[in-house]
Amino acid sequence: MTVHSRPARPVLLGQNQYGKAENRVVRITRDGATHHIKDLNVSVSLSGDMDEVHYSGSNANVLPTDTTKNTVYAFAKEHGIESAERFGIHLARHFVTSQEPIHRARIRIEEYAWERIGTSGAGAKATGADEAGHSFVRKGQETRLTQITYDGASWEVVSGLKDLVVMNSTNSEFWGYVKDKYTTLKEAYDRILATEVSGRWRFGWSDDEQEMPDWEESYEQTRTHMLQAFAETYSLSLQQTLYQMGARIIEHRGEIDEVRFSLPNKHHFLVDLEPFGLKNDTADGAVYFAADRPYGLIEATVLRDGCEPRIPVDLTNL
Amino acid sequence: MTVHSRPARPVLLGQNQYGKAENRVVRITRDGATHHIKDLNVSVSLSGDMDEVHYSGSNANVLPTDTTKNTVYAFAKEHGIESAERFGIHLARHFVTSQEPIHRARIRIEEYAWERIGTSGAGAKATGADEAGHSFVRKGQETRLTQITYDGASWEVVSGLKDLVVMNSTNSEFWGYVKDKYTTLKEAYDRILATEVSGRWRFGWSDDEQEMPDWEESYEQTRTHMLQAFAETYSLSLQQTLYQMGARIIEHRGEIDEVRFSLPNKHHFLVDLEPFGLKNDTADGAVYFAADRPYGLIEATVLRDGCEPRIPVDLTNL
Amino acid sequence: MTVHSRPARPVLLGQNQYGKAENRVVRITRDGATHHIKDLNVSVSLSGDMDEVHYSGSNANVLPTDTTKNTVYAFAKEHGIESAERFGIHLARHFVTSQEPIHRARIRIEEYAWERIGTSGAGAKATGADEAGHSFVRKGQETRLTQITYDGASWEVVSGLKDLVVMNSTNSEFWGYVKDKYTTLKEAYDRILATEVSGRWRFGWSDDEQEMPDWEESYEQTRTHMLQAFAETYSLSLQQTLYQMGARIIEHRGEIDEVRFSLPNKHHFLVDLEPFGLKNDTADGAVYFAADRPYGLIEATVLRDGCEPRIPVDLTNL
Amino acid sequence: MTVHSRPARPVLLGQNQYGKAENRVVRITRDGATHHIKDLNVSVSLSGDMDEVHYSGSNANVLPTDTTKNTVYAFAKEHGIESAERFGIHLARHFVTSQEPIHRARIRIEEYAWERIGTSGAGAKATGADEAGHSFVRKGQETRLTQITYDGASWEVVSGLKDLVVMNSTNSEFWGYVKDKYTTLKEAYDRILATEVSGRWRFGWSDDEQEMPDWEESYEQTRTHMLQAFAETYSLSLQQTLYQMGARIIEHRGEIDEVRFSLPNKHHFLVDLEPFGLKNDTADGAVYFAADRPYGLIEATVLRDGCEPRIPVDLTNL
Repeated sequence: MTVHSRPARPVLLGQNQYGKAENRVVRITRDGATHHIKDLNVSVSLSGDMDEVHYSGSNANVLPTDTTKNTVYAFAKEHGIESAERFGIHLARHFVTSQEPIHRARIRIEEYAWERIGTSGAGAKATGADEAGHSFVRKGQETRLTQITYDGASWEVVSGLKDLVVMNSTNSEFWGYVKDKYTTLKEAYDRILATEVSGRWRFGWSDDEQEMPDWEESYEQTRTHMLQAFAETYSLSLQQTLYQMGARIIEHRGEIDEVRFSLPNKHHFLVDLEPFGLKNDTADGAVYFAADRPYGLIEATVLRDGCEPRIPVDLTNL
Repeated sequence: MTVHSRPARPVLLGQNQYGKAENRVVRITRDGATHHIKDLNVSVSLSGDMDEVHYSGSNANVLPTDTTKNTVYAFAKEHGIESAERFGIHLARHFVTSQEPIHRARIRIEEYAWERIGTSGAGAKATGADEAGHSFVRKGQETRLTQITYDGASWEVVSGLKDLVVMNSTNSEFWGYVKDKYTTLKEAYDRILATEVSGRWRFGWSDDEQEMPDWEESYEQTRTHMLQAFAETYSLSLQQTLYQMGARIIEHRGEIDEVRFSLPNKHHFLVDLEPFGLKNDTADGAVYFAADRPYGLIEATVLRDGCEPRIPVDLTNL
Repeated sequence: MTVHSRPARPVLLGQNQYGKAENRVVRITRDGATHHIKDLNVSVSLSGDMDEVHYSGSNANVLPTDTTKNTVYAFAKEHGIESAERFGIHLARHFVTSQEPIHRARIRIEEYAWERIGTSGAGAKATGADEAGHSFVRKGQETRLTQITYDGASWEVVSGLKDLVVMNSTNSEFWGYVKDKYTTLKEAYDRILATEVSGRWRFGWSDDEQEMPDWEESYEQTRTHMLQAFAETYSLSLQQTLYQMGARIIEHRGEIDEVRFSLPNKHHFLVDLEPFGLKNDTADGAVYFAADRPYGLIEATVLRDGCEPRIPVDLTNL
Repeated sequence: MTVHSRPARPVLLGQNQYGKAENRVVRITRDGATHHIKDLNVSVSLSGDMDEVHYSGSNANVLPTDTTKNTVYAFAKEHGIESAERFGIHLARHFVTSQEPIHRARIRIEEYAWERIGTSGAGAKATGADEAGHSFVRKGQETRLTQITYDGASWEVVSGLKDLVVMNSTNSEFWGYVKDKYTTLKEAYDRILATEVSGRWRFGWSDDEQEMPDWEESYEQTRTHMLQAFAETYSLSLQQTLYQMGARIIEHRGEIDEVRFSLPNKHHFLVDLEPFGLKNDTADGAVYFAADRPYGLIEATVLRDGCEPRIPVDLTNL
């Protein structure tokens, strides 16, 4: 057996992190016959004084990833899961404060929403309730996201969502663009605008001395503003719609300083039905081909004046 | 260039079919400012007098798959999409009756549901409506399915759904099973029961002389009965729950003769927290590990007495 | 607590099966410093006297799916994994012969291939070998498949593969087809033919009295014949190529009686570069757009004369 | 129609980029009867003077994403595809130098490898060759990657790969780690070490005045060094193996200044077979459960002394 020791330079270790990814934890709480679910996918990533494990394989500073997994499950019982954000804050604080070599913890969480199944007439008679207390169907719409980062001094919370597919069937145009020798696209005065939203928003909260936002309410309100801005913007470009979605959030949600979106333009092409003697006018209701690839991809950060952009450009990339 | 002609026996052609799969067609209809979406994925599969194209490559009997694609888009405009089932019936009839060599058409359709985006106060004031007339968010829950088969004489319609994830957080037990030398499982008296429903149901309707079911209403009602049976069955095994889900449909929906389910048992394992000095009792609200693989897989057909089972065992396989 | 008992008719139970799906088992064997891997995904499905578990929830006849999982791992140690087929035969025989209520077992297996990592000069000097004895890279090409079914009397073995993507960059034409009012496709005299092969082949072996095929050699040879037939067929239609692939197997492999393929036509469309003043001739080397959806889908069974077709049409469906 | 104009502050636009993603381009070149394939997935992302399209929807500075798609196909014909890197360089230079408002172009490319199908005896006799000249099977192992960024002055090329699954069946230990109250893991002295490599490496080349690396040879050599380092490192932690893989590249490939890996620890758990009276010793060849989630995730940058780290931490995240 040969153990490699740290090689003579010139090869250095740069940024590094480790942990257990995708711990699937489900917490049920019972309020009499009415149960509640929190359904999360939790990824732990730790950094700190970790040179030696890379150079020589010494694990003296390494809390095993298996232990970080155990901690996720134990904390779900000990602290409950009031919100994904609060749960991540408990975890991050624990790792940084309890292990001297760990200087920074990043917790990423996906959350899946569930809704109650309605009871039948017979079921309602038996239980006196319109909804089953312990029966659920997964909502299946967007995936809610959060990322908590803590370095022992200050917090960064970036929440968001992905997989939310939206469409405006009118009130979208695209014209007046640059034309070069490779341009063949025809201008459009009434097109479908559809996208699958991947968004992240960063909170101003960074310090235990500040009052924490109400994470659950913030999420619901932010999602609503974003959807309404999408619906209510008469769009001349997906960039314009993106900006309006971000601006609406910044304007209405004082707890959020920065928003970043990655919006694929899910093209719906008007089908040419003239060869079959058919008109396919949008005004009349039309038939579209929903294409897979390629797709336009529009990405941007929208920022409260005076705030620094800190959401990484590659965090939301597809 | 060498053209292979039909080889001397002993190699025969058996069942064969061809067509264009996964035509993504979106139809918007406009009722003033209120728009409606039908969003389908349509697969065409044709059979008939097709020996020669296999043996010699002669395409004399072959309607190109590209043409079947064009037909899907043209029919969406010409006939509209009242329901996936009716749309499939139009297509199947067309291929069988218009092309002499085609003796049988099978149309498979996936349908994706959308819901309207609610308007903001300002938006509502501008439009006088609570919901945007032309702005939608994809529901993202189950995928609705149908399969239409026509041979020129009779119809078979099998509808269903997939991707619908449901959970009961109590009222499920599992005990009293066979124990052999490889059995280590502990009996459970209060467990989570969760599954991702893949179901198909076959309609009795088979003849143009019969009145057609109301496909949209049938789907909504069938889905509801299925969910309620899942919620309201006190379960001693997933097999029992499956049977109740199928029986509830057969009992309430006279238009349906046969149901088949493929139900993965999405295991939620109670986490052992004793090493950390924590009790993890279900009665108290518990913490679970949601596992990926392996999973139990329960599949069965439930049938109206007197009817023949015709849904293929492998149609719903995972 | 209410236990549903078997309802009054008219709702009957039809075909049903259950078991543990996707047991990921890896077996390493050591031949001195040279190790060997078998990497399988094993799904168990059992049928028999199972009415009561569906009607009343009684598990008295139910061997838990957890036990079938344990059996997979124990058998991997006890019997080894000489081939996926032999391993499945051990398992199927065990379940049917050891449990009276189980009348039929179906074992489905996916197998992933690995190849050895070549050693560096220094590594070779240290070990005296060109290849590392215990270091592997996953081959990542096709997924090998088998399905073993046993009812206590006779065996059915259907092997095959999926995910194998192949392409002929010439020697493919498509013309002389039916043209109706929805046909716009132009005839092609030199096109790309590409597909992702999903194939299954059924062995004649069905009886413990017969000599078993050499499953490993059979797989390698069948795969080779199939690829060569794909490469060497001058194609006038994908149906013709499919038939040649099946016929080549039947002609060369006496142990195989039936083959079924599901071949998506992975369209590569010649890009129209004329708007940019460029010719894009195939003879000259051309540029193609590789499309995702829709795709042609060609499916057929090829059969040894005198044999019954038994591979289900829906086994290979995409 | 209402066009939103730029809102009064306080909402600013931050980093933004746009383009057409996932253009699937296949280029065939013909050398007599011997054909060659380049099979790419090309994503274009442009930045520059784009405030107005976000604020007011004016497209006056916007080259349509459709045009960037056309350019990809036209350039594949005009310039050929010598390597993914050179192709990306052609594209990036074009967008930045031909469009005044575009100040920066980032081209990301995935490349899929193909290998030739061997001919049968008959085929070889007909063509005089062991391999078909125009018939290919997709290799299906790793996906090769590159990212080209150009701002009109200097170049950054980051190449790499993903989806490459590797395993050492011995020569891996894990012990001597931190133990806290949540630690239950047992130390391991002979375990499987498996990972799915996602790696990126940044080239020193940044200037048209410098000689360009041989991109094809660099890729092959880098991949080989990385695999050999994985195979030949006796591992006390996956971090140590990661560092050795990066260091081997830096030491052998002078054209590369920085490497970043994201390595999931694909856990293979030794199965406890004692309940069945079986020993499952590694020394004897053992049986493992290959787990899906959770997984350890080890990420780090390895750097040539004196070089700045520039590969974003989130570029390789899973």
